[in-house]
Amino acid sequence: MDKYMQLAIDEAKKGLAAGGIPIGSVIIRDGDVLGQGHNQRVQKGDPMAHAEIDCLQNAGRIGTYKGTVLYSTLMPCYLCAGAVVQFGIKKVIVGENTTFDGAQAFMESHGVEVINLQDQTCIDMMTQFIKDKPQLWNEDIGE
Amino acid sequence: MDKYMQLAIDEAKKGLAAGGIPIGSVIIRDGDVLGQGHNQRVQKGDPMAHAEIDCLQNAGRIGTYKGTVLYSTLMPCYLCAGAVVQFGIKKVIVGENTTFDGAQAFMESHGVEVINLQDQTCIDMMTQFIKDKPQLWNEDIGE
Repeated sequence: MDKYMQLAIDEAKKGLAAGGIPIGSVIIRDGDVLGQGHNQRVQKGDPMAHAEIDCLQNAGRIGTYKGTVLYSTLMPCYLCAGAVVQFGIKKVIVGENTTFDGAQAFMESHGVEVINLQDQTCIDMMTQFIKDKPQLWNEDIGE
Repeated sequence: MDKYMQLAIDEAKKGLAAGGIPIGSVIIRDGDVLGQGHNQRVQKGDPMAHAEIDCLQNAGRIGTYKGTVLYSTLMPCYLCAGAVVQFGIKKVIVGENTTFDGAQAFMESHGVEVINLQDQTCIDMMTQFIKDKPQLWNEDIGE
């Protein structure tokens, strides 16, 4: 397992344990972790606190995003993909897109390299969550 | 002047007075203001706290976004346009796009109606800010 994806999975599990949505994210540059986070919709009552947004908030004002790689346990939605495109993050590594399509084509159309690990741990985690709490999941993706 | 755009301008001015970036946003439904906010990159040290994101955070977990209209003093960037598309906000009214192109075509390609008031107060506010603090502005849009 990619160690940064493992970190993102750990973040997702932290969120699940706190009653939240199990999606985690990490941003790195040259092997250094600049920030990490997880979905906090439930915990903070904040509909914008998707995992990738929480991660980028925690990274703080890093200036340029050149050379950064964003990890997420799940294919980013349009909100998070929008952040990727706007801030010039050029590489995104995702755990899976089996449980949620996300905005891969949108990112790629803006020159972002998207690598999908199709990781079984990530798939199982979201599959179970969507089965357990479908309403919460649908709220998170605006459905 | 549209009273909701005036509210967004007031938010922008609040941000400027606090040393921040003068962009404000309001979300309404059936004439009711559900949330309002302004860019807080400087104030909160949060690069994700664009005006529209701050506004949507302040609105909280409203469930469906059906029937909502999002106001912003400036054409939304990809981050904020991504939120609009993901959460199904179908109408966006902006102050201007003279100082920043934003992601109008992206929103429209997802069925969002975008109305640009090309308001002189909004144009003057951003023009002056970009002149005064170009580095801060470039940081905010990831350049």
